[in-house]
Amino acid sequence: MPKSHEFSSILLKTQLFRGVHENELSTWFENKPYRILTFEKGMFLAHSGEPCNELIVLLSGTVMGEMHDFSGKSLKIEDMKAPKPLASAFLFGSDNRFPVSIIANSEATAMFIPRDVVMYLMQKSPVILRNFLNGISNRAQFLSSRIRFLTLPTIRKKIAHFLLGASGFCSDTIRPGQSLAGLAGYFGVARPSLSRSLSEMEAEGMISQKRGEIRITDREKLNKLLQE
Amino acid sequence: MPKSHEFSSILLKTQLFRGVHENELSTWFENKPYRILTFEKGMFLAHSGEPCNELIVLLSGTVMGEMHDFSGKSLKIEDMKAPKPLASAFLFGSDNRFPVSIIANSEATAMFIPRDVVMYLMQKSPVILRNFLNGISNRAQFLSSRIRFLTLPTIRKKIAHFLLGASGFCSDTIRPGQSLAGLAGYFGVARPSLSRSLSEMEAEGMISQKRGEIRITDREKLNKLLQE
Repeated sequence: MPKSHEFSSILLKTQLFRGVHENELSTWFENKPYRILTFEKGMFLAHSGEPCNELIVLLSGTVMGEMHDFSGKSLKIEDMKAPKPLASAFLFGSDNRFPVSIIANSEATAMFIPRDVVMYLMQKSPVILRNFLNGISNRAQFLSSRIRFLTLPTIRKKIAHFLLGASGFCSDTIRPGQSLAGLAGYFGVARPSLSRSLSEMEAEGMISQKRGEIRITDREKLNKLLQE
Repeated sequence: MPKSHEFSSILLKTQLFRGVHENELSTWFENKPYRILTFEKGMFLAHSGEPCNELIVLLSGTVMGEMHDFSGKSLKIEDMKAPKPLASAFLFGSDNRFPVSIIANSEATAMFIPRDVVMYLMQKSPVILRNFLNGISNRAQFLSSRIRFLTLPTIRKKIAHFLLGASGFCSDTIRPGQSLAGLAGYFGVARPSLSRSLSEMEAEGMISQKRGEIRITDREKLNKLLQE
């Protein structure tokens, strides 16, 4: 666990504070009401649905984001590793609540910076302002391209788009790097439906499947399918 | 078309500049390299894929956002009405390109404010800073909840979620306010598949359909379906 006076050197390693001078950063934080807290494994840093009024920067350890689905079952979304600001796209806006619960995977230390202090830092430093804007804009841009993908009207089109994108122009063999269930989650479809569409496309000679690999056997047909 | 010196009173009506004093705003814009341009109906304010280095604020008229799908067909996304900043979530970030083309629907006037000037305004004014952060954060939050919806694994679950959300606790009758094709686009599925799932759910007694209306006939079953 980092000592309190060490936090600024850790902050400088995050996307948000990159490019700032360490001395300046320490000065800006003087007499500001931030908190540094330590969490044991399994403890909650934030609960899904709670108002998000502080920026949480993970200083050490790892945490996971966990969502509750409609039946109340919990669903792990992603692991996050220090040093990293968490959920920064949820600190502002009219519905600024944590979209997921954040739970320590190991002993973890985090800095809680009140929203007003974050505002103060952005007004002090064009570098922090630019970094923060880049962070949430990147998030919005990523989400926006993900929606374009998810609104392709058929599973076959989603598969074609995914394979053509993943293969680029060089290789015809794609290792999705996740299970069929994981891939189905990414596609927003049920696993059996994904499996059925893959088999159909294999039978039509567009692709072949073997031990977790998918090979494009007719790139032209995939392109046509996408353009139907 | 508004005269140049009138632009600041129009800007004050947008979410971005709301709460700023008009005199201050005029002063901040003095000697800054913004441009005010007029567009005839059908002219492009921006092309999809082009770098987005200026914030476009629509001062008068209406424009539409148009996307090109994979086959090159153009697809109207949304209409936007003055006064309004356009695509502000794409001004920063590492891939700051226009996600859609922006085309005038009528004669339109727009102000183009360079990114550096937008940064300058945010550092001058905590109000503008806060408004801008709220704007892009709201966008990211909207996109994020849209993705939660789109990644529900089956069309039936998407329908259940949509109907329960749209009906709230008061009414059992939902008028989707768009055609079946429009709804299918919103769901990211093909129209015939949506239609089939709706009929299935009608046969199972969960809903009934009549002249563009959907009525929830068994709320309990819909809840169960969502939690399966």
